[in-house]
Amino acid sequence: MRLIILQEKLKNGLNIIERISLKSLTLPILNNVLFSAEKNFLKLSATDLEIGINWWVLTKIEKPGEITIPSRLLSGFINLLPNKKINLEVEKNNLLLNCENYKTQINGFSAEEFPIIPKVNQNEFISLNNSVFCRGVGQVVDIALPSGTRPEISGIYFLFQKNAITVAATDSFRLGEKKIFLKNNSSLKEDYSLILPQKTAKELINIFNDKPGELKIYFSANQVMFERLMEEVVHPQIQVVSRLIEGEYPNYQEIIPKKYTTQLILNKEEFLNQIKSASLFSGKINEVNIKILPQEKKIEIFSQSPETGKYQSFISGKIKGQPLKMSFNHRFLLDGLANIKSAEVVFELNGEAGPGLLRPLADESYLYLVMPIKTN
Amino acid sequence: MRLIILQEKLKNGLNIIERISLKSLTLPILNNVLFSAEKNFLKLSATDLEIGINWWVLTKIEKPGEITIPSRLLSGFINLLPNKKINLEVEKNNLLLNCENYKTQINGFSAEEFPIIPKVNQNEFISLNNSVFCRGVGQVVDIALPSGTRPEISGIYFLFQKNAITVAATDSFRLGEKKIFLKNNSSLKEDYSLILPQKTAKELINIFNDKPGELKIYFSANQVMFERLMEEVVHPQIQVVSRLIEGEYPNYQEIIPKKYTTQLILNKEEFLNQIKSASLFSGKINEVNIKILPQEKKIEIFSQSPETGKYQSFISGKIKGQPLKMSFNHRFLLDGLANIKSAEVVFELNGEAGPGLLRPLADESYLYLVMPIKTN
Repeated sequence: MRLIILQEKLKNGLNIIERISLKSLTLPILNNVLFSAEKNFLKLSATDLEIGINWWVLTKIEKPGEITIPSRLLSGFINLLPNKKINLEVEKNNLLLNCENYKTQINGFSAEEFPIIPKVNQNEFISLNNSVFCRGVGQVVDIALPSGTRPEISGIYFLFQKNAITVAATDSFRLGEKKIFLKNNSSLKEDYSLILPQKTAKELINIFNDKPGELKIYFSANQVMFERLMEEVVHPQIQVVSRLIEGEYPNYQEIIPKKYTTQLILNKEEFLNQIKSASLFSGKINEVNIKILPQEKKIEIFSQSPETGKYQSFISGKIKGQPLKMSFNHRFLLDGLANIKSAEVVFELNGEAGPGLLRPLADESYLYLVMPIKTN
Repeated sequence: MRLIILQEKLKNGLNIIERISLKSLTLPILNNVLFSAEKNFLKLSATDLEIGINWWVLTKIEKPGEITIPSRLLSGFINLLPNKKINLEVEKNNLLLNCENYKTQINGFSAEEFPIIPKVNQNEFISLNNSVFCRGVGQVVDIALPSGTRPEISGIYFLFQKNAITVAATDSFRLGEKKIFLKNNSSLKEDYSLILPQKTAKELINIFNDKPGELKIYFSANQVMFERLMEEVVHPQIQVVSRLIEGEYPNYQEIIPKKYTTQLILNKEEFLNQIKSASLFSGKINEVNIKILPQEKKIEIFSQSPETGKYQSFISGKIKGQPLKMSFNHRFLLDGLANIKSAEVVFELNGEAGPGLLRPLADESYLYLVMPIKTN
C-alpha cells in the first residue's frame, strides 16, 4: 500500500472511525483501524463486533494494499500534524508516514487478522434527511433500559413504513415514541420492525447529526445498515452496520391512554423549572407531588423531606377535567420535558394511579408516557 | 433575621461561597453557609478550616440575625429562581424563603455551631490588579507537588517586596518562577515570604480572575488575607483568609543556572506540537529525545517504543553554542511550554545532565527550569 492524502481528510475519517474502536484487552485487534487502498479510494474500517463502520475518501492511491493500525495512537498523531499532504506506505507490518518535518513508523498488524464487517443486502431501503432522523431518535434514545434482564427493552424499537418511521423506547416506568414522516421515496414493499442496540442509536446520532443530506437505511434479517453517500461522486462515504436485538418488542400501543380525566396545558420552561426546584426537596423515592386545582386555574407542586425542608410552588395554565392529586418521580418528568421542544406542553392525566401523557402542544409526532408513584 | 434580596445578587454570592463549602461527613456544619444580616449588609461565610471566605452585599435588612444553611441545596435552589426579589426570614432554625410563586422552608442549624473565620491584622498590605495577580499565580500553581512527604513544596512560595511579588513552585523535577512587578503603593516596611496551600492559590484564581479592579493582600504570622472591595462603597466585597504552610521553602535560586552551553530560540507552537507528537511514541519513562544540530540550524526530536513504533521530526531555529543530545520527560516540557504565552521560546541547556531553562523571548518575568532524564 502506498498513497498520498491531505491531513484534514484523514483526520475527519479517523475521528469518526475511532469512536467504534474499542480499548479491548481480550481482542486487541479491535483497537485497530483497517486501511484498505483500492483505485482512487482509501477505506477505513473499525468494528466492536456489534457495530461495524466503513468510511471512504477519494485520494491518490499509488499502490493498493491493506494494513491495520492502532486507532487511538494514529488518530492522536494525525490530529497534531499540519494540514499538508501525508505520504503513507506499508513496509512489512509497519505504516511509514511522512508529512513535512514529521516522519514516523507505526507498528501495525496484518489486515488478515481483522474481523469481517458483514454486508447488508441492498434491495429494500428507506431514505430520509440525516438530521431529521438524528433529532427524532435523540428524543427517545436515553429512555431505553440498559440491562440484561429484559434485552428487548434495552434497545430502541423502529417500525419502518412506506411513509413514516416510528421510534420508541421504554424502561417500563416511562415510554417515549416519535413518528418521523417521510417525504422521500422508499422502496419498501412491506412494513419492517427491528430493535436496535442503544449504543448503535447513540453512535448514529454522533456520526450523522451534523452532516447535510440524506441517510439511507437498508434491512436484512439480522443486520441493518445506515449509509451516507459522498457529495462529489455516487459512492458511499459512511456505512454503519449494526447487529439487531432478538426478541419481540412489547406491544406498547396498548398502554397509551386514548382518553384523560384531567388535561393541563402549561408553559414548558416554567413547569420544568418548578419540577427541578421541587426535586431538591424530594425524599428517597424521588417523588414530587402535583395538585390540580381546576377552579383556581393553577396547579400546585410540592415536596418535602425530613433532611432538607419543605417546597411549594404554583403554576397557572389551562386546565380541563377533574381536580387531582398525584406523585411522580421527578427524574422521569424532567427527562420527558427535556425532550419536548415546544413552548407549551400538554399533560394528560388518568386518575391517581393511571399513566400521565406529556406531548408538545399542537404536535402529534411525539409522546412521553410516565407512570405515577402510588403513594397510598 | 429578615431581609429582601434580588435573586441575582444572592446567586452570585452563593456561587462563590459554595466552592469552599465541603461535602464533609465528619463535620457536617462545614457543608453550610453562614448568613449574617447586619444593617444594610448581608454577609455569607464558608470555611473548610484551611480557607475561609466572607462575601458581602448591600441589601434591605429588616431584622438583623444569623443562620447556617446547607450550601449546595440553597445554591441549587436559588439558581433556579427567577431574577426577582426574594424574602428571607429565619423561624426557629429554619430559613423561610419566598419568591414569586415559590415558597420554601429549608432546615438550617444555629449559627453558633459555625466555626470562626480568623481575622487578619490589617497593618501591612500589598495592592495590585486582580487579573495580573491571577495570571501570574496561574503560571506556576500546577507545578507544586501535592504530597505529604515534603509539605513545604506542596504549596506555592510567595515573596512580597516593595515593588514586586515573586511566585514560585516546584516538584523537585521542575520549577516555575514568576515575577509580578507592582505599580501601586504598598505599605510594606520589610520583605515578607510565605508558603500558600496549592488549593488556596487555585481558589484565588477561580474567585478573583474575572473580577475588575484591585486585590489587597494582608499578612499576619500564620494567616494571609486576600480582599476585594465593593465598587459602590468602601466596604469589603470578598475576603479569602487562608492558613499558611509551615517550614522553609528550598533556596531554589541556587539551582537556576546563570549560563548555558547551548541556547535555542524556537517557535513555541511548533516546538509544543512536535513534543506532543513525540510523546505518543515515547516509552515507559515518558522520554523524548532532543538532538541539537547547530551547523544545520535545526534540532531533531525523536522517540521510540517497542509497542508503538518510531518518531522523528525537525524544527528550525536560532541556535547558539555546542551540539548536544539529551532526553526530557515530555509531560514536564509540555507543562512548561503551556505556561509560556509568547510566540517564541528561549530554551537554554547546560550539557546532557544539567537543567534546561525555558523562558518567553524578551520577557525576564517568567522562567521554567526542567531537569533532563539521564539516559546513560
